[in-house]
Amino acid sequence: MDFKQEIKDRANIVDSYMESFLPGEDEYPEVIYKAMRYSVFAGGKRLRPIMVMEACKAFGGDWEKTMPFACAIEMIHTYSLIHDDLPALDNDDYRRGRLTSHKMFGESMAILAGDALLHHAFETMAKACVELNDIKYNKAMLAIAEGAGVHGMVAGQVVDVISEGKEIDKDTLDFIHKNKTAAMLIGALKSGAEMGVACDEDIKKIERVGELVGVAFQIQDDILDVTSTFEKLGKPINSDEKNHKVTYATMFGIEKASKIVEEMSDEAIDILKSMGGDMDFLIRLTEYLIKRDN
Amino acid sequence: MDFKQEIKDRANIVDSYMESFLPGEDEYPEVIYKAMRYSVFAGGKRLRPIMVMEACKAFGGDWEKTMPFACAIEMIHTYSLIHDDLPALDNDDYRRGRLTSHKMFGESMAILAGDALLHHAFETMAKACVELNDIKYNKAMLAIAEGAGVHGMVAGQVVDVISEGKEIDKDTLDFIHKNKTAAMLIGALKSGAEMGVACDEDIKKIERVGELVGVAFQIQDDILDVTSTFEKLGKPINSDEKNHKVTYATMFGIEKASKIVEEMSDEAIDILKSMGGDMDFLIRLTEYLIKRDN
Repeated sequence: MDFKQEIKDRANIVDSYMESFLPGEDEYPEVIYKAMRYSVFAGGKRLRPIMVMEACKAFGGDWEKTMPFACAIEMIHTYSLIHDDLPALDNDDYRRGRLTSHKMFGESMAILAGDALLHHAFETMAKACVELNDIKYNKAMLAIAEGAGVHGMVAGQVVDVISEGKEIDKDTLDFIHKNKTAAMLIGALKSGAEMGVACDEDIKKIERVGELVGVAFQIQDDILDVTSTFEKLGKPINSDEKNHKVTYATMFGIEKASKIVEEMSDEAIDILKSMGGDMDFLIRLTEYLIKRDN
Repeated sequence: MDFKQEIKDRANIVDSYMESFLPGEDEYPEVIYKAMRYSVFAGGKRLRPIMVMEACKAFGGDWEKTMPFACAIEMIHTYSLIHDDLPALDNDDYRRGRLTSHKMFGESMAILAGDALLHHAFETMAKACVELNDIKYNKAMLAIAEGAGVHGMVAGQVVDVISEGKEIDKDTLDFIHKNKTAAMLIGALKSGAEMGVACDEDIKKIERVGELVGVAFQIQDDILDVTSTFEKLGKPINSDEKNHKVTYATMFGIEKASKIVEEMSDEAIDILKSMGGDMDFLIRLTEYLIKRDN
């Protein structure tokens, strides 16, 4: 089977669970539940939840029990995009080819829809931790909380915002990549590995894999901003250049940036191959991520 | 000892723990940690964390172990105020006599500071759940998550926002009070009771106490908006009338609204007296909350 199809099949599983974790659109006050669902079901690839599931499976764990955590990390990812797009931040009108939340529901509701998804992510995990009552799930929740939190994604977002329009150096750019993007991928893989009860050494290794894949993923994103098309990306291309945004692509050029992505990806695959458990899917996922065109 | 002083002593304990749970202001990127601390240490009364501690103590639990949860609920309360004050929502320049977060740090950083506090609340609780490894703490976290979440505080906030400038009926007003304010007090009391391992019947009773105290607290707030002074409240008075906001005070008049507050408070105290455990402090707290002048 085509790997893209394997991803799609898993994304469909994530979506069916997501459906059950989100409040219905007919509950009062409807607008907030509509806004939550509008952004969650906007066609994301579900890479983070798939990483949670697959990291758990790789270590022999029960993937169905990971679903509250897998869906929670996607809710967090979605909230971060809603707030990122707000007029006070990136002020983007489109995301994945559709109007952004504040364009669709107004600014106040977009702020609240983001908040609501962040709340609901943790409420979903907290409920699962009570029901499943095993410390491995508490550890999984903590891994996600740390990846997304004030020493993870939030810190990266802050540096991204305060760097806007400035000539930043490579260290600052690396900080943004590691925190804004990679920290959540580390959280996804680590939480899955915790639920698969991986040993401490493998947890450390999977964290490193998350960092490498995350940074490579972000650089690839910046390369695609130059080399892709509106149709493929669902958003305007060359936006970084237009916004005078420093990226690996603008700093080193496409060729060198692509080489760096490849090296990171190779290192991640070498680490995956050195680990216990069945890493086949995660290896193919890593390969896929650097070859993607959207 | 004066009860106000007893509250103050407990608030100081909360603050010293809060200090240890929040990132330092010298960490990079400093601005976000400064913004988090600016709003957390803006002189709140710490009623919600005190309710967590005291509900736990009332049932014979160890109050020190409640501190990650007590501080987390205050972080959530603080984030909700930061986002509530934003230009797209209430557009308030002052809170507790000081500039609001977006006036101090700019709008993008205020959005992120709110997000950061919400993240950090759950990260702090998740960490405690791993360290303490007992289902009662998972239940405490869930109680706070539910109180704050999309069927609690967030729903109340949404209805408050969509009701702005409209002539709303009593049912809508009650929905706002129950969700925007009371749900968090229910979460505080319930989480404390869970950590004190209260029986199911007492958990149900304490939820009802939280609802009564929360709604009474909000009506009292609306009464103070009419009867208090800028100096006592730390914000302009008569703001509800100016904003054409419907409250119990504008709907029923001060006298009847005060009577309703008293009746709710009496019912809450009757329930507290009917429960196992030492409810003395919670009874005095309930009495104090309706007699407060700020």
